[in-house]
Amino acid sequence: MNAPGSTRTVTPPEHVFDWLDDAAAQRAEAGLVRTLTPRTAEAHRLDLAGNDYLGLAHDKRVAGAAAAAALKWGAGATGSRLVTGTTELHAELEYELARFCGTQAALVFSSGFAANLGAVTALTGREAAIVTDKYIHASLIEGCRLSRADVAAVAHKDTAAVGHALATRRKDRALVVTDSVFSVDGDLAPLRELSAVCRQHSAALLVDDAHGLGVLGEGGRGAVHAAGLAGEPDVVITLTLSKSLGAQGGAVLGPRRVIKHLVDTARSFIFDTALAPASAAAALAALRVLRDEPELAERVRGRAAELAFRLSEAGFAVSEPEGAVVSVRAPGPDEAVAWAARCAENGVRVGCFRPPSVPDGVSRLRLTARADLTDTDVDRAVTVITGTAPPDAGR
Amino acid sequence: MNAPGSTRTVTPPEHVFDWLDDAAAQRAEAGLVRTLTPRTAEAHRLDLAGNDYLGLAHDKRVAGAAAAAALKWGAGATGSRLVTGTTELHAELEYELARFCGTQAALVFSSGFAANLGAVTALTGREAAIVTDKYIHASLIEGCRLSRADVAAVAHKDTAAVGHALATRRKDRALVVTDSVFSVDGDLAPLRELSAVCRQHSAALLVDDAHGLGVLGEGGRGAVHAAGLAGEPDVVITLTLSKSLGAQGGAVLGPRRVIKHLVDTARSFIFDTALAPASAAAALAALRVLRDEPELAERVRGRAAELAFRLSEAGFAVSEPEGAVVSVRAPGPDEAVAWAARCAENGVRVGCFRPPSVPDGVSRLRLTARADLTDTDVDRAVTVITGTAPPDAGR
Repeated sequence: MNAPGSTRTVTPPEHVFDWLDDAAAQRAEAGLVRTLTPRTAEAHRLDLAGNDYLGLAHDKRVAGAAAAAALKWGAGATGSRLVTGTTELHAELEYELARFCGTQAALVFSSGFAANLGAVTALTGREAAIVTDKYIHASLIEGCRLSRADVAAVAHKDTAAVGHALATRRKDRALVVTDSVFSVDGDLAPLRELSAVCRQHSAALLVDDAHGLGVLGEGGRGAVHAAGLAGEPDVVITLTLSKSLGAQGGAVLGPRRVIKHLVDTARSFIFDTALAPASAAAALAALRVLRDEPELAERVRGRAAELAFRLSEAGFAVSEPEGAVVSVRAPGPDEAVAWAARCAENGVRVGCFRPPSVPDGVSRLRLTARADLTDTDVDRAVTVITGTAPPDAGR
Repeated sequence: MNAPGSTRTVTPPEHVFDWLDDAAAQRAEAGLVRTLTPRTAEAHRLDLAGNDYLGLAHDKRVAGAAAAAALKWGAGATGSRLVTGTTELHAELEYELARFCGTQAALVFSSGFAANLGAVTALTGREAAIVTDKYIHASLIEGCRLSRADVAAVAHKDTAAVGHALATRRKDRALVVTDSVFSVDGDLAPLRELSAVCRQHSAALLVDDAHGLGVLGEGGRGAVHAAGLAGEPDVVITLTLSKSLGAQGGAVLGPRRVIKHLVDTARSFIFDTALAPASAAAALAALRVLRDEPELAERVRGRAAELAFRLSEAGFAVSEPEGAVVSVRAPGPDEAVAWAARCAENGVRVGCFRPPSVPDGVSRLRLTARADLTDTDVDRAVTVITGTAPPDAGR
């Protein structure tokens, strides 16, 4: 660090980014280098890594709706939602999302990440306090950082700690922020208890139901609906359209005045190009499939329970799945990467989560069940994961 | 504000969001309420509001590529880029983007907003200083806020002020951040001078070329390429795939080590679902059209110059367009909204920018030229804009 006004030695342009090499070397040392591996169109055969829980991304009704929309509406939305980007497809999707999940209104964003940024920042600000579970999704954390609110992150699923943080806050307004199903271990937040503690302390509740939609609740209406909180005047839901609905995009659902407020003030809504028509149409088609086939949600939960049970029987440290996500502990980041690679070599694609994507620093394989898995698929997955496990994988 | 531990009166749940109504009333008072107006599929006929500068969103090669990709690859990417979301399409798009624009490498994000968040945060941090033009795009501002770096926003296009801020910074590392073409008035940043001042002070330069790609430089290679800076070791470019390329998504281009660093550390990359295959395919197809038809870039610039000249002749206060954007000053936010509405009634869709989307607080109509405008289109646009102008619109 130099003092202001001091003379610096000039760094030649080709050395300005030299610090990136040092950072890369440190990551390599810690086993934290990431590699992008392009997949082919056929690579989804036995995929337990993606979030296409209901197998709808490749459903002909859904992919067909995307294709038809690209031809009819064009490849892009051509502008932000407030200028030229709101098509009738976006409006229809918002109407049906709100109806399906049981809220007054909905607003579609270009991603779940953008929906979380927009909802958290627009509903808080300097004059507000935020209390979060410390394991919330990264996009919610970014929203909290951007909000300039007082932020308290409390222990995982500790409702009493939320109550304490609310009681001792220095700002009048407060928002409690949580995932419904936590993305790493697939465990469920105590939504009813959280809502009760919010009400004791005059706080609003924001729930990211990204992993709940299509999986939990009556016909896949999500964890907030299952907790009886979807239409409540003090509850806001954020969703993604890229998991159970097999498309891309995100949404915020809640009371009409919340949605109006986001239209006027959420910067990740106002200053972003609208979701492509193809993605909006695909999400809409998937939502209608889910409405017509409510058994899909039950099916994916059943497959997750089966995977967890059988891997646990095989001696692994397995999370208890509340939704579609099953996580299996690995001895360390390098072992997790190698294990996942061996699974892939054997035709089973599994996720591999390691720092900084895991809040507790524990590396694991992350499996996502799908409604379209067959008995043979499950057998094969269990065989491959077991057969490729490192010797010290908790067995 | 209550003191910690004090007893609050409990607000019933239905009143927790009452503050939103007060905020809405204040916006209504200030003429700042926004309305989403869904458009039909045919609404793009005389559209001077969208950012589809080359008219490629509806080009059969582009929309057709989107449709084919949805059918082949599925409606969504099914996961984040590091898990299942990187398809061969993404890799091909990255390769061709880098080649076209003249950089070592490229990385595709789900939006330009996400690309800007990712690039600014990953390349700075607490140990860095950021110096920005104060008129940069909102997504860059959000990136600066998230970065925790020391941020100095200096006067618009004031290179000397950038130099002063760099000279007096308290951190060793520094990043200068600017738009190439500023989105509101369409004016151009002094990129060569900025690069020179960066080099005097050992700073890297990040340029958002969202409005430059497809419009400026040789065959539409963008403003950074035109300034001879595209392959430089200390320059990073951010782009959107949703304007000239008619699709959705964003990208960061630059030295290979910068791109690797983003893959490992950019949170808006790591924790976001990948861009939908249809959008990646559309952007790739559009890029190839642009490569094969380099005259498109010249054509859109010619149309912008024509619109600006004729509206200026008609007596309006018009910006001098460097790219595709032409702005026309309006007396105030209400007048701008009413003027844009009258244009729309007469079949010409124009943009309307007002606070907080305008950094200087001045409301204006914002017109975007398109490569596919005919002489008749331009005549009609000028006639309608002139004929519907408020009496005090600077004429």
